[in-house]
Amino acid sequence: MQRTPTVVDVATAAQVSRQTVSNVLNSPDIVRPATRERVERAIAELGYRPNAAARRLRTQRSSTLGIRLDHEQNGISGVVLDRFLHALVEAADARRFRVLLFTADSPEDEIAQIEALIEGADADGFVITATAENDPRLSWLHDRNVPFVSFGRPWGVPLDAWDSYPWVDIDGRAGVRGATQHFLAAGTQRVGYLGWPTRFGQDDERRQGWVEAMDAAGTPHDDLELAVEDDVDAAAAAVRTALSAGVTFEAVVCASDTLALGARMALPAAVPVVGYDDTPVAGALGIPSVAQPLVEAARAVVDVLLGSTGHAVLPAPAGHHLLEPSVVWR
Amino acid sequence: MQRTPTVVDVATAAQVSRQTVSNVLNSPDIVRPATRERVERAIAELGYRPNAAARRLRTQRSSTLGIRLDHEQNGISGVVLDRFLHALVEAADARRFRVLLFTADSPEDEIAQIEALIEGADADGFVITATAENDPRLSWLHDRNVPFVSFGRPWGVPLDAWDSYPWVDIDGRAGVRGATQHFLAAGTQRVGYLGWPTRFGQDDERRQGWVEAMDAAGTPHDDLELAVEDDVDAAAAAVRTALSAGVTFEAVVCASDTLALGARMALPAAVPVVGYDDTPVAGALGIPSVAQPLVEAARAVVDVLLGSTGHAVLPAPAGHHLLEPSVVWR
Repeated sequence: MQRTPTVVDVATAAQVSRQTVSNVLNSPDIVRPATRERVERAIAELGYRPNAAARRLRTQRSSTLGIRLDHEQNGISGVVLDRFLHALVEAADARRFRVLLFTADSPEDEIAQIEALIEGADADGFVITATAENDPRLSWLHDRNVPFVSFGRPWGVPLDAWDSYPWVDIDGRAGVRGATQHFLAAGTQRVGYLGWPTRFGQDDERRQGWVEAMDAAGTPHDDLELAVEDDVDAAAAAVRTALSAGVTFEAVVCASDTLALGARMALPAAVPVVGYDDTPVAGALGIPSVAQPLVEAARAVVDVLLGSTGHAVLPAPAGHHLLEPSVVWR
Repeated sequence: MQRTPTVVDVATAAQVSRQTVSNVLNSPDIVRPATRERVERAIAELGYRPNAAARRLRTQRSSTLGIRLDHEQNGISGVVLDRFLHALVEAADARRFRVLLFTADSPEDEIAQIEALIEGADADGFVITATAENDPRLSWLHDRNVPFVSFGRPWGVPLDAWDSYPWVDIDGRAGVRGATQHFLAAGTQRVGYLGWPTRFGQDDERRQGWVEAMDAAGTPHDDLELAVEDDVDAAAAAVRTALSAGVTFEAVVCASDTLALGARMALPAAVPVVGYDDTPVAGALGIPSVAQPLVEAARAVVDVLLGSTGHAVLPAPAGHHLLEPSVVWR
């Protein structure tokens, strides 16, 4: 790229100071008209275009949001974060922001990457995903007043501190509760749940929605719950085992499309199965599934991060958005 | 973020010029030891850290690759570009580069975005995807000596000009040819092909691999070819129509996993079906599929773009890489 004219060149040509040139560009009202015209003429003749890097340097702002993207997540639900990323790029673009990707080996490495990006004024704020227990990232960012939003509730932080962290998340409990209630409202009683073995935190949130709905309807459900790792064959095997033991299902709600696929293969066609994540697999096979409102989530993330000022606020306002998913019925 | 000490602060504290401070940082050997020590002491006392944005401004280099990412591609094969993106972030990271995402409404809009990124020294080079006939991007970039690589052959450019454009692509013809040859080598004759209706350019490349393999084996194939839009139900219907008309298939090779899913639903279980893209759908349903070597492609893209110098070269060397996919047999 050729050497482009700089502010200094314009100042020299117009016989004014650099500050005056800067004023003409940023605060023209404070410059005397004759001076302003002389500077504008020099700008036009030299073909000077304000350099975003220079502006960034002065203001330490870059109009860029940073987010970590690791090697691909195998499996059916890996698509969720990719869909979120697409939506984030669009939502950021609407606020004239871009998205910068980096990769990291660990939460600690991610912190180091973020630190480097801040140092180089490469990113204005950050989106943190996949929060987990004992996650060092949130407190690190919070303590240093780095603008960020967590996509995912701050599960690694004590509940009474959640309010101090900005986050956007999707209510898995509500999603599964809604799917379950759909069957109960139609008079179906034996609505099963096929989920994961974990019994705490975010991995248990979806199951809690099923429990809530069944309890609210006064429907006994001890024998209707299956737990297995997130694997198609394991899910099919678990369902077959239950069927062989004499359990009957009138419908099965699942924690993921992976589990739903297994359930679908093992159950009679007449028994409805609902998955979670509305992946291309569910779409291709006509399996109803709880869809996460990722476009809405991305917009909420950008809104929280950029607020009303149009650039990342220091510190980020502790906004919180819990969005409700809905079932895509097929 | 607080105001951090600058080069000017260090120069003032050490009572030297800015250039001397810069020399201490970048070319210490040319600075007298006493002066160097004085500057280093000032750096330490002030806590000065060289600002990457300032370096970027001086050199107009940003250690960033730009790539467009639009709203999500629905469908089963949308995963391919997302997988490539994951691989690209990793490959770039290995060369200490990051990836900047932006979105655009059209090829012309993409050019405008790229221009803005160049202007702001926000990106060092670009990865162009989804090249198409009459694509204005490649010649625009080429004519302005903007470093770029096309992931996808420059289909919109006359064949005799391909050598002047840097590109990396995956040999779809070889992938389908290999899958077809696998069956022919085992003595199978009636290997069908289920593809798309287009008969030119990149959309016909995969079919050509099947034609090549069948012709090389001297196997007649007029009635073995089906063409339909990339849709599961349409694919299943096309296969059923052929079966009803008395066509028999001993195997079917498909242009995509979407088509393979439809074929799988319509064909007897004993007839093997091979898809393309090795998506999670194929994995979940146990359908063999041609896998694109996306990790290798991403590394090749970065290698072509960054060459041996470690930063984008102006102009980018016109490297070309055609990578061979292979079937994931299940």
